[in-house]
Amino acid sequence: MKLVIGDKNYSSWSMRPWVLMKHFGIPFEEVAVQLGEPDTLASILKHSPSGKVPCLIMDNGASVWESVAILETLAEQFPDVPMWPRDAAARAHARSVSAEMHAGFAELRTNMWMNIHASFPGKGATPGALADVARVDALWSACLDQYGGPFLFGEFGIADAMYAPVVMRFNTWQPRLSEAAAAYARRLTNAPAVQAWIADAMHETHTIDYYETPA
Amino acid sequence: MKLVIGDKNYSSWSMRPWVLMKHFGIPFEEVAVQLGEPDTLASILKHSPSGKVPCLIMDNGASVWESVAILETLAEQFPDVPMWPRDAAARAHARSVSAEMHAGFAELRTNMWMNIHASFPGKGATPGALADVARVDALWSACLDQYGGPFLFGEFGIADAMYAPVVMRFNTWQPRLSEAAAAYARRLTNAPAVQAWIADAMHETHTIDYYETPA
Ligand SMILES: N[C@@H](CCC(=O)N[C@@H](CS)C(=O)NCC(=O)O)C(=O)O
Ligand SMILES: N[C@@H](CCC(=O)N[C@@H](CS)C(=O)NCC(=O)O)C(=O)O
Repeated sequence: MKLVIGDKNYSSWSMRPWVLMKHFGIPFEEVAVQLGEPDTLASILKHSPSGKVPCLIMDNGASVWESVAILETLAEQFPDVPMWPRDAAARAHARSVSAEMHAGFAELRTNMWMNIHASFPGKGATPGALADVARVDALWSACLDQYGGPFLFGEFGIADAMYAPVVMRFNTWQPRLSEAAAAYARRLTNAPAVQAWIADAMHETHTIDYYETPA
Repeated sequence: MKLVIGDKNYSSWSMRPWVLMKHFGIPFEEVAVQLGEPDTLASILKHSPSGKVPCLIMDNGASVWESVAILETLAEQFPDVPMWPRDAAARAHARSVSAEMHAGFAELRTNMWMNIHASFPGKGATPGALADVARVDALWSACLDQYGGPFLFGEFGIADAMYAPVVMRFNTWQPRLSEAAAAYARRLTNAPAVQAWIADAMHETHTIDYYETPA
């Protein structure tokens, strides 16, 4: 399989399937596209009909795009790998919080973008972004409380992969979090697959001006 | 099971699981919450931790929220009901277009909201909304071409349920569509489960001022 991704420093959506596949040792080839360049869209459209990354090219040549669809397809292709919780009610819960991330938190995404190199503490803290931070905190805290940690549903899985880029944002913008949420953010930052992504991001030199200047 | 939904006239997200369950004859009880009222949020939070509808309450009392998560959970609970295409590549494709709807088309959603009673032809046609319409049209046309219709992946399924509210928007705002897309929109409008939703919507009298005045 091939995974088409954007810059590791900036591409929050790309991080999700990459981290999940790394964590579970699923082999894949990486196709990197630099975002924010004049030919970016044309390069992405060669692989992904939506014009967005990530996009997974299956062994049969079929394209799967949209992070949630890629993760769900991987879970189905590798039924013995515990990407979703084994328990049906926990799985429904994990799907709910993953889909909530997939569709939501627009203000957080607009005002506290992912830039792994950068540190913008206290910036981007619009009321809408802070409301999103509060909802993420509540959602994480409820999961950690109900399933006992260390990750959202016990062991690392799809829901954690969905929120890994949010943790990168929190590391950069440093909004105030509850103790439980802050501890989870540290554990997720230190997960080996996340560390591998961060290390690659730190080696990148391509920059996008727009994402280098906090509002 | 119980499905918590908003006004049928306005609640595009609620329409998705409702139409799917009706189409496949899955029994459920309906809990209706009027949107846009001072106590709306409090009423929704009784069922759905995200504060949004739809929310499915499972027989074991667990809540599942976010339309894509509800639909995926239903597909898993009823493995013999063909909610997703049987073929793995088609299923990955159906998941991609469903997730693209779940996360995307923000300009279309903002400028051409769902209001089944209303007719606003030619309004709401901002450049961003029209770009979203063009992408929806291309995405539908590719599916109809590849799988031969009458619905996106052959018979009516989850992907059609995801796009049913988009068809309601197109009926109200009437952006120009390709012939293939317009014909699909008519077929989906005429699907019995969609007709049942529309009929219920037409009986509603509750209005939300904000959605009665096109920009
Ligand atoms: N909902 C999509 C979002 C994908 C997305 O917005 N990707 C961005 C990069 S993180 C992109 O490809 N943008 C196109 C561009 O920058 O030209 C998903 O889950 O994959
Ligand atoms: N991504 C969510 C979106 C749900 C949503 O935004 N629902 C709206 C109504 S259609 C809502 O509940 N709004 C809360 C309110 O109006 O108070 C989903 O797929 O279910």
